[in-house]
Amino acid sequence: MSKKEIPYKIYLTENELPKEWYNVRADMRTDHRPLLNPVTHKPVTLSELEPVFCTELAKQELNDTDAFIEIPKEVRDFYKMYRPSPLVRAYCLEKYLDTPAEIYYKFEGNNTSGSHKLNSAIAQAYYAKEQGLKGVTTETGAGQWGTALSMACGYFGLDLTVYMVRCSYEQKPQRRTLMQVYGAKVIPSPSDTTEVGRKMLAEFPDSSGSLGTAISEAVEVAVKGNGTRYVLGSVLNQVVLHQSVIGLESKTAMEKYDVYPDMVIGCAGGGSNLGGLMAPFMRDKLQGKESPYFIAVEPMSCPSLTRGKFAYDYCDTGKVTPLAKMYTLGSSFMPAPTHAGGLRYHGMSPILSQLYHDGYLDEARAVSQVDVFKAAVEFARVEGILPAPESSHAIKVAMDEARKCKETGEKKVILFGLTGTGYFDLISYERYLKGELKDAVPTDEALAKGENALPEV
Amino acid sequence: MSKKEIPYKIYLTENELPKEWYNVRADMRTDHRPLLNPVTHKPVTLSELEPVFCTELAKQELNDTDAFIEIPKEVRDFYKMYRPSPLVRAYCLEKYLDTPAEIYYKFEGNNTSGSHKLNSAIAQAYYAKEQGLKGVTTETGAGQWGTALSMACGYFGLDLTVYMVRCSYEQKPQRRTLMQVYGAKVIPSPSDTTEVGRKMLAEFPDSSGSLGTAISEAVEVAVKGNGTRYVLGSVLNQVVLHQSVIGLESKTAMEKYDVYPDMVIGCAGGGSNLGGLMAPFMRDKLQGKESPYFIAVEPMSCPSLTRGKFAYDYCDTGKVTPLAKMYTLGSSFMPAPTHAGGLRYHGMSPILSQLYHDGYLDEARAVSQVDVFKAAVEFARVEGILPAPESSHAIKVAMDEARKCKETGEKKVILFGLTGTGYFDLISYERYLKGELKDAVPTDEALAKGENALPEV
Repeated sequence: MSKKEIPYKIYLTENELPKEWYNVRADMRTDHRPLLNPVTHKPVTLSELEPVFCTELAKQELNDTDAFIEIPKEVRDFYKMYRPSPLVRAYCLEKYLDTPAEIYYKFEGNNTSGSHKLNSAIAQAYYAKEQGLKGVTTETGAGQWGTALSMACGYFGLDLTVYMVRCSYEQKPQRRTLMQVYGAKVIPSPSDTTEVGRKMLAEFPDSSGSLGTAISEAVEVAVKGNGTRYVLGSVLNQVVLHQSVIGLESKTAMEKYDVYPDMVIGCAGGGSNLGGLMAPFMRDKLQGKESPYFIAVEPMSCPSLTRGKFAYDYCDTGKVTPLAKMYTLGSSFMPAPTHAGGLRYHGMSPILSQLYHDGYLDEARAVSQVDVFKAAVEFARVEGILPAPESSHAIKVAMDEARKCKETGEKKVILFGLTGTGYFDLISYERYLKGELKDAVPTDEALAKGENALPEV
Repeated sequence: MSKKEIPYKIYLTENELPKEWYNVRADMRTDHRPLLNPVTHKPVTLSELEPVFCTELAKQELNDTDAFIEIPKEVRDFYKMYRPSPLVRAYCLEKYLDTPAEIYYKFEGNNTSGSHKLNSAIAQAYYAKEQGLKGVTTETGAGQWGTALSMACGYFGLDLTVYMVRCSYEQKPQRRTLMQVYGAKVIPSPSDTTEVGRKMLAEFPDSSGSLGTAISEAVEVAVKGNGTRYVLGSVLNQVVLHQSVIGLESKTAMEKYDVYPDMVIGCAGGGSNLGGLMAPFMRDKLQGKESPYFIAVEPMSCPSLTRGKFAYDYCDTGKVTPLAKMYTLGSSFMPAPTHAGGLRYHGMSPILSQLYHDGYLDEARAVSQVDVFKAAVEFARVEGILPAPESSHAIKVAMDEARKCKETGEKKVILFGLTGTGYFDLISYERYLKGELKDAVPTDEALAKGENALPEV
């Protein structure tokens, strides 16, 4: 516990903004399982990645030796428009829970993209610009990543084509418009602009699309294009690297008040947010120092860590991407249509997967979506901020742990990641308030089917 | 110009948060024209206001002697959850405009209500709680004020009933849900819960509602209720008082870097935001010191300052509220349905009106909504933040002034108010991008009709 008076919000100065990202892979005591070529099953090389990814990003993807990588000045300048983000002491939540615990959250939602995705989007756009590329392509499901990348590309004057899953394109016109305001070209997927899309439309003219198809379309256009590359918002090592800015700022802010977390909690979909938040604290653990207890929170409907298998699998449903060793439910697994789109991914960041497998990431916990929205509404009323459904998974577990502290009398210091705001998720909140939300827990049969479809490596 | 390096965002510490609001009326060199009873046309007394407003707020409404009024500790504690708000140096916008001007904006959108309205909502809720009231009622059009008040009442555990103009209730379900998340009861107006509403429904069963009717319903329920009062989000003196926190923080932040604005610009609907932003700088002017040039920006479609009359008028279309001396287009004037709902008010804060009439508020400028959205999109792309359409009126004029500086070479320091975000206004942005927006400038005949309907006082 700190001896200094801790403000409601700790803001670092711009000079305290990290100058380097932290690459946790360099400190991991493991033989990193390489990405494999999806056809040959041999480790992918830089030259195989370069037609798809920007060269500098492909290098970062493969880098497991440099613990620190400089944040380019241009990226830091952009960061200054919305970072350092506040580390909030949740005084009101503590009072509401009547807990002896100290609760802190790192709030990444105070930017127009509404989430932490912007941290990596601006880095990826910068390297594309630096390489002299004309533009990039990507896919988006619910729209958070597409929005973040639109802002980043708008800033650097890069062309951006976003393949948006058709049902989202139609159901979330606000997200689509937001991307267009920032100059992005938004195409509903499947589309007639790619071979993959045309094939899909010929077979299923009324297809409402899927993330798998959208990825395949975006990759096809990037590879065939002149001076274009494909970019991705989570799962990849490079994204976890960029997101380390979240944890680095959190650690510096806490150190200013002589506080160190006993527990670090984050929601985990692709894993980039939790990976970033816990990175510098994980370094302490990897170096054998005092360190927090780490908890990854996932939805019961898509339990990759708690019920998945640690195995090589495709990163996409279309099976065009490299194979990664990760916790996975199988790339053919279709999670139920829950209200936390950002957590509906069949796999998990290879970095987080390895840390979990090796026991450094202490625990994964699957929670009910109804319980998550209950926690979200309680949080909104006492802390003011309307949280994203994804972030609310971390809120739910942080509140549970704080309540346990009330029972035991322990003054634990709890840090969790509040990754974003729920301003575009009000339909989900409405369904919760009406009592219409349910949980969809996959059957053992469904999981066995996904596992059986894993590639043989 | 400052000699110190100015960061992108200037954050005051929580200890620097103002401890008192500034009441500009106390320094104004004028005989304040009192509110008049709408029936007797005699100055309203405290006892006449008390059945409608909380007692402490009624006192603030009439207070023209105390220059500073203490901000209660409970309100300051709530402020700490989202204040001090950042004063942003718009480096990217300056670069984009290639201007020698220094541009600053005070950003009030980083809270879930999305605007500055929360500054007064929490104060009004606090005084209601302190008085031992059970709850409050209000009306909302587009939903910003209703959202802010829902958050404030949720925090203090007060009942809140919001009469929401029926067409907004149906067209903006997200805003409605957001209020419900914070525990508010939201009723589409006209409703069968009041005499006024029932009468309106009997006459016009398909009425889509109006702000005038919603006010009348909210007032009726407050006055008839047991331990309830009515609260309002703009126009009133008490609201301008609470919003002075915007200007006080801005001035302190600028002083830390030895900067003083040459020009202060704000959008003006009811006037609470500009009134709050300019308050401490206006004090300098009222005291004969060096002071900025003040510009109020309003939409061409609702030009109360630029084409209205300085006269006594009703504050509502239902003619149940007291008469206020203000610039007005007449309470019967119906502005065209533009995309800046917060600026569609027939009148203007009596404080701003008097200051404009007396030449202290230097200039009012009416701008085109198409030009405003053009500026909003440019701003979003270079500064990252998607601005509310209302706020974008100030952006438009700030950009115009910065461009003038480029022509003249003047290094003016421009400060404007960025009152909120446009996350719930994306339908308007979509219409702008599609080229569907037009301007609706009222005819001289329409204005004459409004003026002829002014009450004879």
